[in-house]
Amino acid sequence: MAKQKKMVEEITSMDEDFVKWYTDIVKKAELMSYSSVKGCMIIQPYGYAIWENIQKILDGRFKELGHENVAMPMLIPESLLQKEKDHVEGFAPEVAWVTHGGSEKLQERLCIRPTSETLFCEHFSHIIHSWRDLPKLYNQWCSVVRWEKTTRPFLRSVEFYWQEGHTMHETAEEAKKETEQMLNVYANFCENDLAIPVIKGQKTEKEKFAGAEATYTIEALMHDGKALQSATSHYFGDGFAKAFDITFQNRENKSEYPHQTSWGISTRIIGGIIMTHGDDNGLVLPPAIAPIQVIIIPIAMHKEGVIDKANEILNELKSICRVKMDTSEQTPGWKFAEYEMKGVPLRLEIGPKDIEKGQCVIVRRDNREKIIVNLENLENEVLRLLEEVRKGIYEKALERRNNMTYTAKNMDEIKEISNSKQGFIKAMWCGSKECEEKLKDELGITSRCIPFHQENISDKCAICGEKAKNMLYWGKAY
Amino acid sequence: MAKQKKMVEEITSMDEDFVKWYTDIVKKAELMSYSSVKGCMIIQPYGYAIWENIQKILDGRFKELGHENVAMPMLIPESLLQKEKDHVEGFAPEVAWVTHGGSEKLQERLCIRPTSETLFCEHFSHIIHSWRDLPKLYNQWCSVVRWEKTTRPFLRSVEFYWQEGHTMHETAEEAKKETEQMLNVYANFCENDLAIPVIKGQKTEKEKFAGAEATYTIEALMHDGKALQSATSHYFGDGFAKAFDITFQNRENKSEYPHQTSWGISTRIIGGIIMTHGDDNGLVLPPAIAPIQVIIIPIAMHKEGVIDKANEILNELKSICRVKMDTSEQTPGWKFAEYEMKGVPLRLEIGPKDIEKGQCVIVRRDNREKIIVNLENLENEVLRLLEEVRKGIYEKALERRNNMTYTAKNMDEIKEISNSKQGFIKAMWCGSKECEEKLKDELGITSRCIPFHQENISDKCAICGEKAKNMLYWGKAY
Repeated sequence: MAKQKKMVEEITSMDEDFVKWYTDIVKKAELMSYSSVKGCMIIQPYGYAIWENIQKILDGRFKELGHENVAMPMLIPESLLQKEKDHVEGFAPEVAWVTHGGSEKLQERLCIRPTSETLFCEHFSHIIHSWRDLPKLYNQWCSVVRWEKTTRPFLRSVEFYWQEGHTMHETAEEAKKETEQMLNVYANFCENDLAIPVIKGQKTEKEKFAGAEATYTIEALMHDGKALQSATSHYFGDGFAKAFDITFQNRENKSEYPHQTSWGISTRIIGGIIMTHGDDNGLVLPPAIAPIQVIIIPIAMHKEGVIDKANEILNELKSICRVKMDTSEQTPGWKFAEYEMKGVPLRLEIGPKDIEKGQCVIVRRDNREKIIVNLENLENEVLRLLEEVRKGIYEKALERRNNMTYTAKNMDEIKEISNSKQGFIKAMWCGSKECEEKLKDELGITSRCIPFHQENISDKCAICGEKAKNMLYWGKAY
Repeated sequence: MAKQKKMVEEITSMDEDFVKWYTDIVKKAELMSYSSVKGCMIIQPYGYAIWENIQKILDGRFKELGHENVAMPMLIPESLLQKEKDHVEGFAPEVAWVTHGGSEKLQERLCIRPTSETLFCEHFSHIIHSWRDLPKLYNQWCSVVRWEKTTRPFLRSVEFYWQEGHTMHETAEEAKKETEQMLNVYANFCENDLAIPVIKGQKTEKEKFAGAEATYTIEALMHDGKALQSATSHYFGDGFAKAFDITFQNRENKSEYPHQTSWGISTRIIGGIIMTHGDDNGLVLPPAIAPIQVIIIPIAMHKEGVIDKANEILNELKSICRVKMDTSEQTPGWKFAEYEMKGVPLRLEIGPKDIEKGQCVIVRRDNREKIIVNLENLENEVLRLLEEVRKGIYEKALERRNNMTYTAKNMDEIKEISNSKQGFIKAMWCGSKECEEKLKDELGITSRCIPFHQENISDKCAICGEKAKNMLYWGKAY
């Protein structure tokens, strides 16, 4: 009776204990579980199906824009990792080292990739010779390893899954355009497909990627008021190209360094989906990536014609969405709770009375609204309601983010907000690392980004009072 | 002029030097290149696109049969690897060991997975409790690492890509059926999609997978007469279940061990495609997995209306196949050679005279046959010709295999064939490991499989002359 036991356990309420609420959902929706290697996760079928849907959408968009998939090795020789100074400083402290192959000690240690810039650069140095070889627009889907001490399901794990785009261009301008384009691909994906509102902006010098000239980010606000960096896009200039001696003959027949970008999104975004849309009944999944978009639950299954009609509906809907039917012997009540917990966007109930009237009942997961649908108009209604769910959860998330975004003019206001509230703080900044460090040390708050959309709150840095340079989003972050 | 340089270099002829012919194709078709870690490969876009097409077809078939994808960690603690005795003996000598995380020495070494039975078993022990939890039909797409000393592109590399299916069942019968079913999925895929004829059979005790009760295989014969083990399917019985203490309450409410299988196919099959269908002009790709199925080459591009018509054809064909057009400034002759080398199944030429006549010219890669096609009937003809290419290369490969399969009744005949010919040798076998070892030591020949389709060549073992048990396929293998 493994299945029925689950009904008894309840999900901890979000207000009571957010961390436990999160872990309960991950566990009860069977998204992932931990393995015997500390911090390494097993992504279970329901969680992996979400990741596959994310991959499918993004992979299609990358390819439409001319990117090609490749596979780089998972191992990096120590000397290769060390070629770019900032990069090795950023990553060397947190890599896993392979020292033995079989019973032999290796002459040089190899690390498991924490990211693959160095591997791509070495390959680029072999295959880029002329401007005719550019641009190179590469991407790979893989897992990477970072030796984190504190881990959280999906949000921070020793091994995690992602894609990493790596591109090389003739000009700085073209590379910058690519960086911006890919940030927009991520932003549109988050907002339109995942229904997660994001702030687009640039990371400060302190928070940028090790080795990048500029890092761009999309930042989302979770239910508990903490920020989640949801995807990043980096402009490298020619720094790596110089370190790895990648040159090409330009159109004037002169040797030149190409300009580089990289960009990525990871399984961490699954944590973002949970913490943006979930509620006390469990997951709420955006239709675009829900493994099951519509669950059909026949009512009074034993009555004549019910299963037949439900099957008919199942077959009809298969061509327009991801649909399943549950004909197990559990009660309808159990099934309702189960698929609510799993975040299925629409539940379709069909029983003898509905059949008589030529209708069915559809219940939205996001707001539990019940809609009576004429079976003759079923396909249109299902598509319309899936879109309504998407809009509904986006608007709810946007409203919450707006309600949880505060403005502060000085340290007193920052402190007061930080002590009494959770959320984004918008405040002016002078541009100094010292002010960033002060907020981090005193309040545990970090700069999230310099948003593209600037507002002029005041002309003074909220932290030191000196002349302000930018308006920043600040917050506690995952 | 990177592109034009390639034309000058020729592919080494197959008869002259098969190994060099193979390496030339891999390099010139830009399928893969080596990284700075010995034996670890970079799969380049054209090679990876082949792998993606393989994945797409097989993943769909696995899912149709109820399998679900998951992701297991890439790291295995040493103690976990050691739980199943035969398994650790088989794999421990060839794994890469992680000993440090960041700057700290780990308390227990971790190996990078050489295969994931131990990880799946540990997970199964946590999630299988009742017969209601069975079957578990899991699969994962990933890379694994085996510390090989001698490597060959795709055929044997330190890191390689594959899928590994892992399933758990209530009964031995059901698990055996799964083992057989998955072997058939692979065999059908190889024969129908890759056009590679295969022999289905069982591995001997000596050649079976470390920890399996029985290993089933499909064996293909390469152009040079060597055998390639193309995919395997293993029946584990309850050996791993016992070692990992995986039990379930059966329908009679008694505790029982479940029965297990695993099955896999890897990027090695790309080597199989090259060595089955390739010729002295380069790759010949089966249409099902060719990244480009039809290449359109406009002739006399500068003449009015040619590019327009070619574009029209491109757009028409896009809905039925993977089609590209090459409008670069290279000569048609260069393009013909380039796409022949890349193994594109059909080349479509369209020039002013063709347009006048409302036709185009299609050239098959496999036999260079030229077909004049009326543009009104283009879609049907393209689909028909892709199917003809598939059949054509299958039949050619089958004929070659038949011509290269020999029958031997005794050691003298085996020696004579082995000294003068390349190919499969069919011979009777008494069932003893000693006879297998003798052939290996004296002639470098291994048993490929005990084919399901048995023939009675004689009643005596060809090696020792004792009573024969089975007819075996023998050969030199990759």
